[in-house]
Amino acid sequence: MTLRVTFLGTGGAVPTTERNTSAVAVNREGDQFLFDAGEGTQRQMMRFGTGFAVSDVFLTHLHGDHVLGLPGLLQTWGFNDRTEPLTVHVPQGTKREVHDLLHAADTDPDFRVTVNEVSPGAVARDGEGYEVRAVATAHRTTAVGYALVEDERKGRFDRDRAEDLGVPVGPKFSKLHDGEAVELDDGSVVTPEEVVGPPRPGRRLVYTGDTRPADSVVAAAEGADLLIHDATFADDHLDRARDTGHATAREAAEVAADAGAVRLALTHLSSRYAGDASRLRREAESVAAFDGEVLLPGDGDEVDVPFPR
Amino acid sequence: MTLRVTFLGTGGAVPTTERNTSAVAVNREGDQFLFDAGEGTQRQMMRFGTGFAVSDVFLTHLHGDHVLGLPGLLQTWGFNDRTEPLTVHVPQGTKREVHDLLHAADTDPDFRVTVNEVSPGAVARDGEGYEVRAVATAHRTTAVGYALVEDERKGRFDRDRAEDLGVPVGPKFSKLHDGEAVELDDGSVVTPEEVVGPPRPGRRLVYTGDTRPADSVVAAAEGADLLIHDATFADDHLDRARDTGHATAREAAEVAADAGAVRLALTHLSSRYAGDASRLRREAESVAAFDGEVLLPGDGDEVDVPFPR
Repeated sequence: MTLRVTFLGTGGAVPTTERNTSAVAVNREGDQFLFDAGEGTQRQMMRFGTGFAVSDVFLTHLHGDHVLGLPGLLQTWGFNDRTEPLTVHVPQGTKREVHDLLHAADTDPDFRVTVNEVSPGAVARDGEGYEVRAVATAHRTTAVGYALVEDERKGRFDRDRAEDLGVPVGPKFSKLHDGEAVELDDGSVVTPEEVVGPPRPGRRLVYTGDTRPADSVVAAAEGADLLIHDATFADDHLDRARDTGHATAREAAEVAADAGAVRLALTHLSSRYAGDASRLRREAESVAAFDGEVLLPGDGDEVDVPFPR
Repeated sequence: MTLRVTFLGTGGAVPTTERNTSAVAVNREGDQFLFDAGEGTQRQMMRFGTGFAVSDVFLTHLHGDHVLGLPGLLQTWGFNDRTEPLTVHVPQGTKREVHDLLHAADTDPDFRVTVNEVSPGAVARDGEGYEVRAVATAHRTTAVGYALVEDERKGRFDRDRAEDLGVPVGPKFSKLHDGEAVELDDGSVVTPEEVVGPPRPGRRLVYTGDTRPADSVVAAAEGADLLIHDATFADDHLDRARDTGHATAREAAEVAADAGAVRLALTHLSSRYAGDASRLRREAESVAAFDGEVLLPGDGDEVDVPFPR
């Protein structure tokens, strides 16, 4: 069950030749989403081959470096005769601004575009086997993050134990795994509890967009398999991070530590680190409380999110 | 006296990994302009080093692939503390749409942005030693092209002849070249006509934006040193060119021939020629009546426009 993240734009408000403005493509077993869509996102999608069959765009906030790729995407989808509807999820109260954005160019797509306002905690998309929920964040403007949370998976099926109990290999295995008791030929009954372990958690992927460190993000990212967090600045610009509603790489790691996240991806890097962003990784890794892995993805990098162990 | 053109986006409505949407940077002796500004233009400017000290953006029409880079540029200029005013020239009647475009993102720049509506024939920018004029084009929507037309230059100064006439090397040379008669020590008078040739034409650069072949473009491009013309399609899609208000490469060359242009640059190439656009050049070159040079620039290509011989 694929859960693949492709970083399309890992730069901050001002792009560089190496890092474009914000966008993350997520593919969960064929369901394709964009989280933010900065200017130039469509071309990044072409370059990195993420595909254009996107059903939902989740916007964290309406700053240009997170949304200005959307009108061009609409135009390109239009030129490619898209008919499938598109849902654009946006923070509560921004619908009017989004309307202006969608009509920034002389585009009036033939496919249906639904703008869905979401408040923190609300389910933006109710998928098959997962949800995408809005998460409260702390930026300078109306903003949310998003958590993709998979349903619990069935417990592990103990095949050996089932055979020991005399269950014949075949459909009774599936029934037991699906939670039904089965009767054997000798009249005895085997219950799921005897052969199926406890339900296992699904995967959890959190994308903050722009934010200061926030308890709400810690809560949403509890045990997250991948937390993609604002890390605009290094320690030397902590004041600026505070002033502008962003986080340092160290702060991002502190959030990841508090949440017990498995992996942390640093993104939205300021153009001042264009030459060498390695100090951001070092500063995040220096947070002793975080025992997960720190990623410093570049544009085009893919991360496959495995199931928790 | 530099007149340098940098092709920032040579693709059509849908960008490809090789060709971005429309934008042309022009640098005339330090005066920097953009002609159109498709999505991603700011990053192309970074990549190709054209500089950001742009005073004027000339938009041909309001289709997304020509304008969606503008809001991001405004944001980046804002982040870089730009204070110089910016003028955005747009076709007459589109000011309201442009307003929506400029406010597509949550940007309200600290520098002054003037939107200047221009009708065909009007002078959009009255520069020192040149003008940029709007040119009537024929697209599906309100649209203009632009012609950068330099003033005539002084005639050639015949140094040898001046010395033969007894003019001493020095300030009298400049006076004569500037059109003043001078009196020599022996009381004789030398007039400019004796030592200065006829005025020489300046350079002429024409950018059409999207257009069908048009007599107005032929007129504006008379003897143009560089005509940058819509060449969206090859011969095989002439019908489509007609339907969508574009030109074929062959038609662009016919316009260049009628205008007696020196060089023709084919641009706005449809993504269907992404693999190999050489047929566009071949079809343009096959127009026997055009004895100029056909250019098929790629993104980042620079063309220095020399003075006419």
